[in-house]
Amino acid sequence: MFPPERILMGPGPSDVHPAVLRAQSQPLLGHLDPDFTPVLEQIASGLRTVFRTGNPVTFAVSATGMAGMEAALVNLVEPGDDVVVGVNGVFGGRMAEVARRAGATVHTVEADWGRIIDPAAFIDAVERHRPRVAGLVHAETSTGVHQPVAEIGTAVADTDTLLVLDTVTSLAGVDVRVDDWDVDVAYSGTQKCLSVPPGLAPITFSERAVQRVRERTTPVQSWYLDLTLLLGYLDGRGGRTYHHTAPISSLYGLATGLDLVLEEGLEARLARHATLGALLHEGLEALGLELLAEPGHRLPQLTTVALPDDVDEAALRARLLTEHGIEVGAGLGTFAGRAWRIGLMGHACSERNVRLLLAALERLLDQAPAPTATT
Amino acid sequence: MFPPERILMGPGPSDVHPAVLRAQSQPLLGHLDPDFTPVLEQIASGLRTVFRTGNPVTFAVSATGMAGMEAALVNLVEPGDDVVVGVNGVFGGRMAEVARRAGATVHTVEADWGRIIDPAAFIDAVERHRPRVAGLVHAETSTGVHQPVAEIGTAVADTDTLLVLDTVTSLAGVDVRVDDWDVDVAYSGTQKCLSVPPGLAPITFSERAVQRVRERTTPVQSWYLDLTLLLGYLDGRGGRTYHHTAPISSLYGLATGLDLVLEEGLEARLARHATLGALLHEGLEALGLELLAEPGHRLPQLTTVALPDDVDEAALRARLLTEHGIEVGAGLGTFAGRAWRIGLMGHACSERNVRLLLAALERLLDQAPAPTATT
Repeated sequence: MFPPERILMGPGPSDVHPAVLRAQSQPLLGHLDPDFTPVLEQIASGLRTVFRTGNPVTFAVSATGMAGMEAALVNLVEPGDDVVVGVNGVFGGRMAEVARRAGATVHTVEADWGRIIDPAAFIDAVERHRPRVAGLVHAETSTGVHQPVAEIGTAVADTDTLLVLDTVTSLAGVDVRVDDWDVDVAYSGTQKCLSVPPGLAPITFSERAVQRVRERTTPVQSWYLDLTLLLGYLDGRGGRTYHHTAPISSLYGLATGLDLVLEEGLEARLARHATLGALLHEGLEALGLELLAEPGHRLPQLTTVALPDDVDEAALRARLLTEHGIEVGAGLGTFAGRAWRIGLMGHACSERNVRLLLAALERLLDQAPAPTATT
Repeated sequence: MFPPERILMGPGPSDVHPAVLRAQSQPLLGHLDPDFTPVLEQIASGLRTVFRTGNPVTFAVSATGMAGMEAALVNLVEPGDDVVVGVNGVFGGRMAEVARRAGATVHTVEADWGRIIDPAAFIDAVERHRPRVAGLVHAETSTGVHQPVAEIGTAVADTDTLLVLDTVTSLAGVDVRVDDWDVDVAYSGTQKCLSVPPGLAPITFSERAVQRVRERTTPVQSWYLDLTLLLGYLDGRGGRTYHHTAPISSLYGLATGLDLVLEEGLEARLARHATLGALLHEGLEALGLELLAEPGHRLPQLTTVALPDDVDEAALRARLLTEHGIEVGAGLGTFAGRAWRIGLMGHACSERNVRLLLAALERLLDQAPAPTATT
């Protein structure tokens, strides 16, 4: 098995450091082996650093980022609960759908694609509906929008509402401050700015959130994601109780990926993303391309850019992949067929990659055939 | 990260062939990369071989074996449905619980731990309750019992009931015949007789089962496990629609692990398990130990054995791990504190390992201190 070499500059997975790949090739320990415990502890500690939280209940769900979203909602929501969700892209829409499937009555606070959710409107909806859960996407991967959270967090903390934050694309790419922002549950994925292969969903629960899960009157609909059962394994103090078999190799990879983040330093890593994101944005605009996220709220690690109207974006994207070995993402939803999503995440976020992409794009746009004239 | 060397002879994970570990260290492709498609196709094809099925809908769920169980049930069950489950150990009990959380009214058919579910009693329950789903564990990992399925499958196939079979521990260790036995959904895990690290749940749906999922009148409660959404990605014919980010490294590992199974030949692999399982059983009985699964229905790949009453099983198990580097599993449920679960799965199923374990066990039992006399 020799996969072709790629530079992964799409919405994830991102390129993985060789040390992480090597860690995944280590022989297995059993998930109940006492010598596996330090790996779990290292992951919990590293995740607390990147989430900027002291939450004891911080771990990796044994499935991808979307299961992190589901874990957050099915544990917090009971049938009939009200839930407020901010929807300004695909992932907010998904959060609303996952909450509905957990039995919630969902109230959406919407914004145009490419715009942030207005904090005042969101806070107003929380005050009106007094929901059990309010959910928000920090880095909307479908639009490249960087949602401000602090003001919302402060307002929601004074209510009985639990604040859920999707940090799948933001974690370790832009600042995520779970404790400062009074976020009750934040979840993420490994394959974005942590630069670890997909397969795990880092998650953290505030003590208030854990308490609310314990006080449920109905069982969590997902046995696999039931926090109270998971804690029997995760909380090693009483001995680890088997729940499911932890994905050992993936956890080796995550532990190593977190080590790389700590070695670089979280602040340095965030600064690297900010600097190179700005370089990419300038470069794209210099090519005459339009950025689709509103100015002032653009993510450095995920950029949505409109292609010229006369360009077949899918054909151009295929050439970028086959001729230059660079993967970028197609537009989703409203942006499908007319935009790309360019990732600058983690290990893939380098000046070399920005320069390579801009040079390749300039060449391809110069060569792009004019569309066939229609008569 | 240098984990200590272990021989994994517990209930899973089992030892992994170095080729599988190497595959997990390959650089990533994106999950939508055209060059990733052959990996998915190779996995589907390999799984069809080991499941002995022609089912087009055969894939790996992006989570561990327990999520395979949940995927089977949440897709097939709608709230209020009747479900019959055979319970003669932990995993049958879990299937009943997962079905309840999906809204089912569950009727259990029980047997003592270490005994099979009586096929006539199971068929009778299906005829009485006419459930939407009947679920059975093929290889009960908590007891080492090998459940006969063929007669049940034939009987259930004539009804509207869908037969779900847990093959987590059986797949590629004993014969699993999805098509011959008219099984509607079978799921498994990678970390048992396939000898691939934990993290994926192979699953196969009959066309009848897929049709029933499509005809549901309520949404599948799990968005992550919703088959109709997953098919948008898995069925490449219409182009792959993004649902969640596939766990690339784990899928590389599974593709390679399946290659190893096919290279050995499924029949040869099953014969190897049968022969060495018998050798282990004889050896344990020669040491004066009692096997807990009923004769004639013992799994070769998972053996439950009672320790002498005067032995502290946990202390002995810890010495086996630290002094001999051999992991075996503790007893679960009824067998906790008095039995071990010994795995002989996949790559770990070798004559060398059987001899090593028996020699180590003989030494440790000889040295085991008599219990403190109680007065």
